[in-house]
Amino acid sequence: MTLDVVALRREIHAHPETAFREVRTTARVAEVLTGLGLEPRTGSGVLERDGIVDYPDDATLDGDAERAVATGADATWVEAVRRDGAALVVDVTGSRPGPTWALRFDTDALPIVESEEAGHVPAREGFRSTFARGMHACGHDGHVAIGLGLAERLRDDPDFAGTVRFLFQPAEEGGRGARAMLAGGALEGVDRFVALHLGLDLPLGHVVGGAVGAFATTKLRARFTGVASHAAAAPQDGRNALAAAAAGTLAVLAQPRWSTTDTRVNVGTLRAGDGVNIIPAWAELTAETRALDAAVQDEMTARVTAALQGAAASYGCEVTVTPTGGSTTMESDEAVADALRGHAADLGLTAETFGPMGGSDDASLFLAEVQRHGGSGSYVMVGADNPAPHHNPAFDVDERALAHGLDLLERLVRAG
Amino acid sequence: MTLDVVALRREIHAHPETAFREVRTTARVAEVLTGLGLEPRTGSGVLERDGIVDYPDDATLDGDAERAVATGADATWVEAVRRDGAALVVDVTGSRPGPTWALRFDTDALPIVESEEAGHVPAREGFRSTFARGMHACGHDGHVAIGLGLAERLRDDPDFAGTVRFLFQPAEEGGRGARAMLAGGALEGVDRFVALHLGLDLPLGHVVGGAVGAFATTKLRARFTGVASHAAAAPQDGRNALAAAAAGTLAVLAQPRWSTTDTRVNVGTLRAGDGVNIIPAWAELTAETRALDAAVQDEMTARVTAALQGAAASYGCEVTVTPTGGSTTMESDEAVADALRGHAADLGLTAETFGPMGGSDDASLFLAEVQRHGGSGSYVMVGADNPAPHHNPAFDVDERALAHGLDLLERLVRAG
Amino acid sequence: MTLDVVALRREIHAHPETAFREVRTTARVAEVLTGLGLEPRTGSGVLERDGIVDYPDDATLDGDAERAVATGADATWVEAVRRDGAALVVDVTGSRPGPTWALRFDTDALPIVESEEAGHVPAREGFRSTFARGMHACGHDGHVAIGLGLAERLRDDPDFAGTVRFLFQPAEEGGRGARAMLAGGALEGVDRFVALHLGLDLPLGHVVGGAVGAFATTKLRARFTGVASHAAAAPQDGRNALAAAAAGTLAVLAQPRWSTTDTRVNVGTLRAGDGVNIIPAWAELTAETRALDAAVQDEMTARVTAALQGAAASYGCEVTVTPTGGSTTMESDEAVADALRGHAADLGLTAETFGPMGGSDDASLFLAEVQRHGGSGSYVMVGADNPAPHHNPAFDVDERALAHGLDLLERLVRAG
Amino acid sequence: MTLDVVALRREIHAHPETAFREVRTTARVAEVLTGLGLEPRTGSGVLERDGIVDYPDDATLDGDAERAVATGADATWVEAVRRDGAALVVDVTGSRPGPTWALRFDTDALPIVESEEAGHVPAREGFRSTFARGMHACGHDGHVAIGLGLAERLRDDPDFAGTVRFLFQPAEEGGRGARAMLAGGALEGVDRFVALHLGLDLPLGHVVGGAVGAFATTKLRARFTGVASHAAAAPQDGRNALAAAAAGTLAVLAQPRWSTTDTRVNVGTLRAGDGVNIIPAWAELTAETRALDAAVQDEMTARVTAALQGAAASYGCEVTVTPTGGSTTMESDEAVADALRGHAADLGLTAETFGPMGGSDDASLFLAEVQRHGGSGSYVMVGADNPAPHHNPAFDVDERALAHGLDLLERLVRAG
Repeated sequence: MTLDVVALRREIHAHPETAFREVRTTARVAEVLTGLGLEPRTGSGVLERDGIVDYPDDATLDGDAERAVATGADATWVEAVRRDGAALVVDVTGSRPGPTWALRFDTDALPIVESEEAGHVPAREGFRSTFARGMHACGHDGHVAIGLGLAERLRDDPDFAGTVRFLFQPAEEGGRGARAMLAGGALEGVDRFVALHLGLDLPLGHVVGGAVGAFATTKLRARFTGVASHAAAAPQDGRNALAAAAAGTLAVLAQPRWSTTDTRVNVGTLRAGDGVNIIPAWAELTAETRALDAAVQDEMTARVTAALQGAAASYGCEVTVTPTGGSTTMESDEAVADALRGHAADLGLTAETFGPMGGSDDASLFLAEVQRHGGSGSYVMVGADNPAPHHNPAFDVDERALAHGLDLLERLVRAG
Repeated sequence: MTLDVVALRREIHAHPETAFREVRTTARVAEVLTGLGLEPRTGSGVLERDGIVDYPDDATLDGDAERAVATGADATWVEAVRRDGAALVVDVTGSRPGPTWALRFDTDALPIVESEEAGHVPAREGFRSTFARGMHACGHDGHVAIGLGLAERLRDDPDFAGTVRFLFQPAEEGGRGARAMLAGGALEGVDRFVALHLGLDLPLGHVVGGAVGAFATTKLRARFTGVASHAAAAPQDGRNALAAAAAGTLAVLAQPRWSTTDTRVNVGTLRAGDGVNIIPAWAELTAETRALDAAVQDEMTARVTAALQGAAASYGCEVTVTPTGGSTTMESDEAVADALRGHAADLGLTAETFGPMGGSDDASLFLAEVQRHGGSGSYVMVGADNPAPHHNPAFDVDERALAHGLDLLERLVRAG
Repeated sequence: MTLDVVALRREIHAHPETAFREVRTTARVAEVLTGLGLEPRTGSGVLERDGIVDYPDDATLDGDAERAVATGADATWVEAVRRDGAALVVDVTGSRPGPTWALRFDTDALPIVESEEAGHVPAREGFRSTFARGMHACGHDGHVAIGLGLAERLRDDPDFAGTVRFLFQPAEEGGRGARAMLAGGALEGVDRFVALHLGLDLPLGHVVGGAVGAFATTKLRARFTGVASHAAAAPQDGRNALAAAAAGTLAVLAQPRWSTTDTRVNVGTLRAGDGVNIIPAWAELTAETRALDAAVQDEMTARVTAALQGAAASYGCEVTVTPTGGSTTMESDEAVADALRGHAADLGLTAETFGPMGGSDDASLFLAEVQRHGGSGSYVMVGADNPAPHHNPAFDVDERALAHGLDLLERLVRAG
Repeated sequence: MTLDVVALRREIHAHPETAFREVRTTARVAEVLTGLGLEPRTGSGVLERDGIVDYPDDATLDGDAERAVATGADATWVEAVRRDGAALVVDVTGSRPGPTWALRFDTDALPIVESEEAGHVPAREGFRSTFARGMHACGHDGHVAIGLGLAERLRDDPDFAGTVRFLFQPAEEGGRGARAMLAGGALEGVDRFVALHLGLDLPLGHVVGGAVGAFATTKLRARFTGVASHAAAAPQDGRNALAAAAAGTLAVLAQPRWSTTDTRVNVGTLRAGDGVNIIPAWAELTAETRALDAAVQDEMTARVTAALQGAAASYGCEVTVTPTGGSTTMESDEAVADALRGHAADLGLTAETFGPMGGSDDASLFLAEVQRHGGSGSYVMVGADNPAPHHNPAFDVDERALAHGLDLLERLVRAG
């Protein structure tokens, strides 16, 4: 074994890239895998870009590519990823026939400014984010490192049955990447699916073999269109899109609780208007709904959409509400979860029997698709003593968890 | 002259009746006029009840009639008014041929609890309202007294040309009475129209011969319908009409100012819901819009209606928006206004040349109708040193203003 | 046995009385108990009226008393209840020494207009509510009948240990009655507490021996005070209390969900303003918060209060937020619940092991008080095939459930 | 005369710069004036930067300076303006002793994307904005050209009494430039003040010698601070700043109309939140109030501030409300206005006698300051047939108006 997964994690951590802009990260993954003699693939069969809402524009991606090369990524792989999109698949084949596994490793970071506090390990140890407004505040940097480490181990010793397909997935945050890879065909022929997540408020050494209770979720973007007008000279000629979005926000937040299942609702961002003395002609907000019951989730999405449409009409504006991403509930298969618990115990880890996620992950779409075709799978949670909540500027993982995840997945695959 | 207009005003003041419930007031007017040998008319040709929104129900009117008799009104006239509606017309004919005048005297009071302060003259002098939740806080009690006094004078000395038609109008507040009398035909054959209003923040002894700047206005009622549900057991099954009305209120209040004319907007009342632990299934609000430009007023009404409809949709509710009343702008004719200024000067009063009303009066509908048929008219403001604003529990008029109004109208009619 | 509990329930059903106005109901209870030779008590030691928010005014209660007598209640008892308040306690003593039990029977109805549909049994069978705007839509009529039936049985055969105190409690809805009886000392010396509730969406024949999952709840009343002003003549002089309440409503509904426990929030009623053309100077709303965790419930109440205060300040108004009632979480003791399950089985009923209430009941305050003093108790749910949800105009109970409840409580007490 | 004012206007038009970023514009003005042998001044005595809210940061201004040089501005002047701020004063002395005039020429553009329609003259004639998100949509480009042309004429022929001080002012939009120049002392010793504005919906050839009816205005920035939290994992730990800003927006828009004067209110921009699944921890909005009465304007500003503070409190957030700029009412002196009307007539232009501005201009602060010291002045409106309203992407001026303004100001100064 030559790869240093901790060092890899730190390098990825220092260069965080947000949804569909994981150019450097994916190019580095490709470079490392190629160095292992493997044959990573991008483009056709891996990612379908049609249907992605708010895919970054060319200028942004060109800048990302430039930055990737400037920070040490391989220029040829950067060009490929820039062209094909930041998703990558690689297969490692075992020495015996057997099932096709798919393991998901998500690669994206968040638009958060990372903590500079001395108590924050990445700051103290010198691998804090070097990119503006980006941070690996959800542990995906660790996932990438585990994926690379596992690929090396399986290549070094192919004593396992079947094939393991590694899915390096962009845009998990916002729930856009999995569906684009599904649309691209990345999951074809897969019999077993596992995704692993570090942290999730579990103590180091604790493992949940099969998470349940992931929220189905839909992310929405609402664009309000009004009419601009000088706020002193002719306010009556305006139609106030900012006011419509404000009213829409309050209507979304007023959605009722459900007595039959747990739900969530949020308006996360709002941008509106160009100048203090102009009746605002535009506004754009993003909202999300979640439920532990997929049918309720659909109903909530319909109601939130109606809430935004009504608010627009109320202020004489138009609105277009567009789903931008989402995921479904997570139903880990008990057999796979049991196997994982056994491996955890063998490794001296503590296996939790009940694992409510409390969040969403679009790995649920992969899992549901595999299950729909008769396959099985699970969502594994690996404790990492995270000192601050996910999505917080001070989030971090105890790097000893990387080995836990790596060992666990290796045993699962080798056990068949 | 036998009528004591001050005593009449005080009697009316002590028995205030709100819109379309002026049973005692109208019966008393009829009784006094009959006593003068005149022939007041109610019912057909006076008031059309079809089309009146929120006409009081039978139980309410029966109670009013009972109360009217109990407080001294003539039982026969009470019965007639109860049956025909609280509007009355009487003609007094002059000794010479001439035009038909219509003079409007509004009879309704407001749902206000009158001040009991010692400084409030009606309280001190013992003619404070004796009816629950009613008060003559707009001076209509004085108008009624002036109308009766003028009828007596013209009957006593018919030395004038033409006919004077006295319109004792209900429901000026809310703008519902004039349109119902117009629909009934009360204004047919009228050539000249004058309405007089006491107070309006003018000093005693000051007169505006031809008011301008009355707001066109529309009164709206919005009934929201949602779905009730237990707020703990099944909040998701409810559709919150109270929340819809709240959002609608804020949308109405967010209506823009107009750079081209003066406007107003208000949500005056809101009632919603039956219990603290029930998702409210119903809400009802009343709103008004006003503008000094009738076209702008129509536009505002359309926008406010859309604001309420959008709010209802935003919260999954239905709403019905119904115009309940209104009035138009007031364009007093310069010739009539000039004549009134002359009479004012002759009487030793101060004639103001510019008179912005700052409010609305559905006498504007009478005036506009007369003008549409080639007639003319004016809206006269008679100062009364009102110690508190109109619609305030401490509103009052200096009773010397009664004589001013009476003298002024008499001179106008006799001058022809 | 001479009492017909079904007939009693129907009589109570036909004469529903809302919170603290249970004059007829309580007087009838007293009359029946007295007829059994028991000595019911009202007043001191039973109910403390100081501290009750929104206690009905004298005129209302005088009317209620008059109505009670007119509909057949005993005049002497009506007078006592009118004077002392509508709460009643009676003790039945067993033939052997033993613990003091308290059994709670709530007596109040809801301000709901009962269904007249033919399919609604009370309508079809002729015992639909004969009182305006009142309905036993929560089964308390059945509770009263069970209480009376049980008192008769225990008096007839005092073969049990200790004393059974019957608490006939007003104002369960809104959570005001139990605290007033606690304050009055009605629970002093009690060792064991049981409350029984019919319906709660359980099938007939099913019983929950020890309910859990009752929401702690607080009911709030917020009175907003602004400044009235003529909406056309001087809108700037007003301070809009209706708008403040509307904004406060939306702020209350925007309270976040809790990831750690189930919560609820509602604004149930809103009343504001006097006239369409007046800037509204007052508004009053009622709101409630609920949580399955009492500490969260307190936090929610604090936040909702702050939400309303901020809204008032935002619109230049004042607000007073007053808790009017509430209850706490329900922690039935396992031993009592077990005993009840055993009795249920003996009676041929189906004992459910898990019973989430999904609502609130201020019996929780009695239970918590007994537990604080080392006692124990439970909240029993008795299935009644209710054809419509609680608080619905078509709510009803299968009257066979009355016998189930009666038998169950009798066995519990006799078993000691 | 060698300067081509139309060409100058077009050059300025093509290089629009927003508030306090007028680096190129001011450097070009300096270069032209220096070329005329005049001695323009920047820095001390011209502009005080302390107290300017939201002054652009260094990186922005460095970029602006770079751009200015790249687009042909003189590097030395660019450096001076970059260092001292984009305000400039130059004095031209007459051949005779006399008063000190100050003439204001504002230099800033708006953050608007200019129309590319063929019907839009700057697009068709090739002088459309070449800078991203900037446009001279208010005619200040023409003001700059007039200022330069007038400086040349007065230098060429100093036959006038006194001194003419040219104030090239930044940041008129938002009302921040005049107060910074006043603070810097740019107006010291000035006896007469005139500002000229093109367009304002007047036809070409029409002139208003002394505008009245400018709104006093205050621009506010409100920064809301809440607490971020994962919207699914712990929504209860968040405090929603976006919701607070939305509620604040609606409370600002609900401000009442004034019956005593004309008012305006607007929330022009809103930015909030970082991600769809995070409870938004921050929001920032800009708002403005206006009134034709300065005391009412102050009152409105106080109420809007309270509205925003209450909204923040209502949602558990903090807010800081900061005035960023503003202006006062405009009271042109009749004598100066009369003189201008006379000159207009002499020039064959049509002098309007009444000129309500319908907007705001912080030249009012200069005028008020001169008047406070016993001086006089006026605000001149010069018709320019603008084909679209001010601040519209299709705004333009008929360039013949440049000569009208130039001739008018020259005559005014020479007439003394």
